Amino acid sequence: MLINQSMNTATLNITASASVLAPSADLSSLTVVKVGGAEGIDLDAFCADAANVILAGTPLVIVHGGSHQTNVLSDALGHPPRFITSPSGHTSRRTDRRTLEIFQMACRGVLNQQIVERLQRHGVNAVGLSGMDGRTWEGQRKSAVRAVVNGRTVVIRDDFTGTVESVNTGLLRTLLNSELTPVLSPPAISAAPDHEPINVDADRAAAMTAVALGSDHLLLLSNVPGLLRAFPDESSLIPLVSRAELASAAAIAQGRMKKKILGAEEALAGGVARITIADARVSTPVSLALAGRGTVID
Amino acid sequence: MLINQSMNTATLNITASASVLAPSADLSSLTVVKVGGAEGIDLDAFCADAANVILAGTPLVIVHGGSHQTNVLSDALGHPPRFITSPSGHTSRRTDRRTLEIFQMACRGVLNQQIVERLQRHGVNAVGLSGMDGRTWEGQRKSAVRAVVNGRTVVIRDDFTGTVESVNTGLLRTLLNSELTPVLSPPAISAAPDHEPINVDADRAAAMTAVALGSDHLLLLSNVPGLLRAFPDESSLIPLVSRAELASAAAIAQGRMKKKILGAEEALAGGVARITIADARVSTPVSLALAGRGTVID
Repeated sequence: MLINQSMNTATLNITASASVLAPSADLSSLTVVKVGGAEGIDLDAFCADAANVILAGTPLVIVHGGSHQTNVLSDALGHPPRFITSPSGHTSRRTDRRTLEIFQMACRGVLNQQIVERLQRHGVNAVGLSGMDGRTWEGQRKSAVRAVVNGRTVVIRDDFTGTVESVNTGLLRTLLNSELTPVLSPPAISAAPDHEPINVDADRAAAMTAVALGSDHLLLLSNVPGLLRAFPDESSLIPLVSRAELASAAAIAQGRMKKKILGAEEALAGGVARITIADARVSTPVSLALAGRGTVID
Repeated sequence: MLINQSMNTATLNITASASVLAPSADLSSLTVVKVGGAEGIDLDAFCADAANVILAGTPLVIVHGGSHQTNVLSDALGHPPRFITSPSGHTSRRTDRRTLEIFQMACRGVLNQQIVERLQRHGVNAVGLSGMDGRTWEGQRKSAVRAVVNGRTVVIRDDFTGTVESVNTGLLRTLLNSELTPVLSPPAISAAPDHEPINVDADRAAAMTAVALGSDHLLLLSNVPGLLRAFPDESSLIPLVSRAELASAAAIAQGRMKKKILGAEEALAGGVARITIADARVSTPVSLALAGRGTVID
């Protein structure tokens, strides 16, 4: 109250009108949900279910990537997608400046606004953001990226990739408190003074966001039912992974799942109580993941 | 203060942290600036100058279109741009669903984030938005668009165009009060229950936004020095147009300038004291327009 009392009149008016919009924003159940943009994911079903969850009282921060859409657009624009594998076995998109621009078109221009449009249609007042907006995701652009090509490690210097190092939660909290639902996607922004867009892994960025917002629960939804003991055999789903079992889970994980397990590790280390890796290809993906379907890590 | 006192604890915490960010947001000089995306406009210069103006104490809401970028991308994707002329002589983009998607890529994915990136580099914490975000620009999709083709009037029914009918200022005010700079572009969103993206004229949408925010000053910057008595002769600039002279100004206006004069009329009618139509191709376009360079309408 001390701070409110010290505000000038102009600020007071605005603050009052913001709180009229949101007299009772209760963020105690705030959940961060990352959804993939891969083929097979029904965006309509995801958004309808997310809207139901939000309207029933669980505020969500929705995070998405745009890998599939970027691949399609890259091909259409004659700049085919390329991927690189790091010496530690992680795969990421080769992101030159043109790729970054195409990524922003696909991610920010298409998928982000498709999610916002659908949430609005279901009665949720959504706001699309990239990590650059409000400097929400701040990180460091890698000066050199190491990639394994034909068994040899090469160094790439014009790549616009990096890792989120800090989440500035001011904008997200302001929106959530006004009962607005943030829909957030890469790129992130590199630190001052350069402030360039950087492609970051959306699973790990979602994990960082859950940590920064003090969220108890992180959902990582994609086109697999969870962590599989024998990928791609979906009947080999591991329903529960304890903190102590995470290292062996990381050893089992294949491809994109490696980043999800890494994100889960970072989220747990940062105080998030539970991470659920679950299927986005079902009719109510958010509700089912909240209820514990998938691989629960805690 | 009454409303603040009635808030619950969760809300109070957030409000307090938002006001720490913005202890003294003074919105009395708030100005809405529309900048075109046409060739010849130096985005670096525009953003550097806008940042200077903001950091010197004049909060801005920046509105932009993306016509030029949409044309380039439409050609690259094999869906060339088409334009239609209404019976009253206004030109607008033929916007089928694919064009709308390309428009969102160009406008939201590219130009919007280019502006945000540059403002961030100049120390301004910007947030990119479309009119769909927060339902900021709500309107009605036209069920039928009339166009003159070879001298005959035809009716087009699958066009995603419309006009902004109401500006929901909640999100804009929340951002401004947190010293965040909104960067806003079409599309708008059609009314419930459809909530579809609709292409709207960004000049007129900027005018509506200035009215809704109670802004005293609207700047419309593009690749002309202002209203020209004998377009395209730039030496025929009309420096001042009074309210009483607006009808004759509308008769002089050619092409895109017609929409700017229409926007100026709507802004004046809605209580905006002064509209300046000015050149975006100079090194300090915002400062010069604020100082009265261009065509001042009041």
